[in-house]
Amino acid sequence: MNVDIRGMSRYPEPLRRAIEAFMVLPGIGRRTAERFAFSLLQGKQETAALLATSILNLHKQVTACKQCGQFSEKSICSICGNVKRNKMELCVVAEGRDIFPIEQTNLYHGLYFVLGGLLNPIEGINPKQLRFKELYERIKSDGIIEIILALNNNLEGDATALYLAKLLKPTKIKITRLARGLPTGSRLEYADEATLQSAFLNRKEI
Amino acid sequence: MNVDIRGMSRYPEPLRRAIEAFMVLPGIGRRTAERFAFSLLQGKQETAALLATSILNLHKQVTACKQCGQFSEKSICSICGNVKRNKMELCVVAEGRDIFPIEQTNLYHGLYFVLGGLLNPIEGINPKQLRFKELYERIKSDGIIEIILALNNNLEGDATALYLAKLLKPTKIKITRLARGLPTGSRLEYADEATLQSAFLNRKEI
Repeated sequence: MNVDIRGMSRYPEPLRRAIEAFMVLPGIGRRTAERFAFSLLQGKQETAALLATSILNLHKQVTACKQCGQFSEKSICSICGNVKRNKMELCVVAEGRDIFPIEQTNLYHGLYFVLGGLLNPIEGINPKQLRFKELYERIKSDGIIEIILALNNNLEGDATALYLAKLLKPTKIKITRLARGLPTGSRLEYADEATLQSAFLNRKEI
Repeated sequence: MNVDIRGMSRYPEPLRRAIEAFMVLPGIGRRTAERFAFSLLQGKQETAALLATSILNLHKQVTACKQCGQFSEKSICSICGNVKRNKMELCVVAEGRDIFPIEQTNLYHGLYFVLGGLLNPIEGINPKQLRFKELYERIKSDGIIEIILALNNNLEGDATALYLAKLLKPTKIKITRLARGLPTGSRLEYADEATLQSAFLNRKEI
């Protein structure tokens, strides 16, 4: 009867199920999942109920904005629906979550477009799975004059930016990418080679 | 309007609530909670629903065994209810979760008793909050001949062991503690002073 390598069968069934359910969260292995389940069991029932309800409500109450694809409670999100935003600028991001840090800067007042990911042939993410077609349609119909690509500064981000530049070339719209260089607060001695190269190549006169 | 230091107000309300709810889990800060919520939102609704249901069921379906205090689906847990276990040995642990690793060893076949914590005057955990009285009653009535203290090897564990030794002295029952020494698989060069001291003092002839 000793085939239970991971020792889970000794837990009461509901505890085991909760531990396994927690392991779907990113970066959470069995030990941490156990700690989560035990902590909830030892805490108040209300705390666990609140967590469960808010997880249930995520999919029930949060949807994607029909225009930009961002997480939203309504079919048109608060940014797309804001008449004060500049409708001629479009910032293209990979995921809806990328919009929040950009909004935090208080520097950008245009609209957004969520691609739904970045090109990654190795993981099987090709142009058909991303919202390139929708982006092209939107640009053609909406009188946009500048597109800012706010994509990750890595291989996938570069590939996607190149693809988009090619795709959008016929529209003759200005396409920019976020600057590359040293991050604020960084120390030169710890900068990696690629970052330092970008910082040199993009150096500015003061 | 820029009093939202943590930037949470930009999230749709249900997303914000889920992030805050995740932060009740041990060791989970805002960034990780965000990662959890986004991951669930981007995943299937069924995955999120399964997690929510299993969290809800924890308190609904798991209770404490009336005899030992361990997590259990029934009022008497499978260990206390097992007629094959040695009812004359009692292993005292701080928390119910401590029982699982001991069971994994397949070395102990007696019963358990969960104290509900360890003495910790700084955090306000004094004898009245732990199940010392219940333990004393149980020992008096159950014909136990040996008590094994399986407590953490730290200040709180030591304080609790000393307190129990004093409390149970009149019963004249044999009281033991788990051995102290080098953990299996450890390298001497990385052993801390206290562990090495224990290992020397408890050395055995071979």
